[in-house]
Parts: sequence; C-alpha cells; structure tokens
Amino acid sequence: MDIAMAEARAASLRGEVPVGAALAGPQGQVLARAGNRVEEWHDPSAHAEMQVMRAATRLRGGARLADCTLYVTLEPCPMCAAAAVHFRIGRIVFGAYDPKGGGVEHGPRVFAQARCLHRPETVGGMREREAGALLRDFFAHKRV
Amino acid sequence: MDIAMAEARAASLRGEVPVGAALAGPQGQVLARAGNRVEEWHDPSAHAEMQVMRAATRLRGGARLADCTLYVTLEPCPMCAAAAVHFRIGRIVFGAYDPKGGGVEHGPRVFAQARCLHRPETVGGMREREAGALLRDFFAHKRV
Repeated sequence: MDIAMAEARAASLRGEVPVGAALAGPQGQVLARAGNRVEEWHDPSAHAEMQVMRAATRLRGGARLADCTLYVTLEPCPMCAAAAVHFRIGRIVFGAYDPKGGGVEHGPRVFAQARCLHRPETVGGMREREAGALLRDFFAHKRV
Repeated sequence: MDIAMAEARAASLRGEVPVGAALAGPQGQVLARAGNRVEEWHDPSAHAEMQVMRAATRLRGGARLADCTLYVTLEPCPMCAAAAVHFRIGRIVFGAYDPKGGGVEHGPRVFAQARCLHRPETVGGMREREAGALLRDFFAHKRV
C-alpha cells in the first residue's frame, strides 16, 4: 500500500486525481505500479488499476492474476471492478471507500452480482484516512 | 454496424471471441474500428469497445464522446458499459443481447444505477441474429 500511496501522490503532482495502485505477485513481489494517467494520456480509462492489471498480465505472458493482490488507494469504480473479474484478480485491498463512484461496496457492487464469474477477496478501508485526505486535499485545492 | 460485423469476423479468424466495434462521429464518420484482441495482446481488457473508445478519444485530443455512437456486435459487458460512462459516449447500438455477460440490459445494468453519472442512449438487438450466429458458430467450432 506504500507504493500505491506514493503513486497517488505522484499523480496529484501531475494534476491527476490522486489514485495509485500496485500489483503484488504471490510472493509479495511488485509486478506493476501506476498512478492515474487520465489527463496526460487523454484516456478516461487510464485508471491506476487498469494500468497495473494490464501491465502485469503482459509481463506474465497472458496468465490471469488469481495469485495476485491489487492494492489501490480508492475503492475501484465499476469499470475497474469489472475488469478485475476479467483479469481474475485474487485479492483487492483498497484505501478510501467511494460512495459516489465506487463499484465494489457501492453502486452496482460488481462482485455481488449473481452472474459474476469470479469474485476477488476484498479488503476495504486500509489506511482509509490517509488515502481519503489525499483526495480531499486535491479537490479542495482545485476549487480555490 | 457493417464495419463492426466485419471486425467481428476478422477477430474470429484470429481465434478471438468474435466481437467487433466501430465508433462513429457526429457526421457518421468512422473514428475508430476494432475487434477483440484479448488473446493476441494477452490483455483481458482488450475488448473491441475499449479499443475504439480509447482510440477515438486520443484522436480527438481528449474530448469526450458525447456526440458519438458506439456500434458493437454484442451487448457490452459491465467493464465496457462502465467505461462508456467515463468516455461520455452519446449512443450505443449493439447487436446480440448477452444474458450471461452483458452489463447494459443484464447483470449490473450499469446505466440504470442511481449513481450513474452519464447514461448513453442505447439500442439493442440490431442485426441480432447475424451477430449471435457469429458467436454461436465460433463456440460450436471451439468445442469440436
């Protein structure tokens, strides 16, 4: 989660919504790390989670990620949660809950759907205050 | 939809699940076209829809796609439907319905969620038989 937090802070300095992610393999090794690149890449799908899942799968030549843990500073949105199903992510550990835009504990609750083909184990609220403060500071500054 | 169908057929010949997409701008001009590349790119997120939305947004330097129509041969999955919200797609026209994996008329019904920030107009079932036949033929052949 330290790496995900560092990526979120780096994203903030680039003017991106400060969300960061890291993908850890079965021995805890970091397979990929990324921050939000939506603005820089002109790509609304360039969320931190999408980037690390894609990078890790490419690195492993296509193997799915059932033995991996995705660390991310904010509750994944429905797009990223549904992508985590396609990538067969084993476990997701996230920081702040996102009642407005989240898709794991809020909104469509992607993994709770009857037709969901794969349900990652999820742990929410890890270092929630710190992750939430990063986002609040960013948006408070944007509004000035 | 002709282009999306052609992309689906081309995907099938590459051994990919035959789904194709085309993204049309406000005057009906084709901004992007793509077929599934999940296997070839070792990327479970490389659905046809994701590719055309990303390509079109890059092409337009980041402008969202509210004046565009996404044509796709199969009902978008929850990941692609949620991505269409991020990209602010104006309209989605899809072919076959997907009761198992769809996310528009089935499963999480992404656009029907109370917190959904943008709801594309959707038209389902266009050339449904033809789009469905492509998928059935592909899977029947895979099982032989």
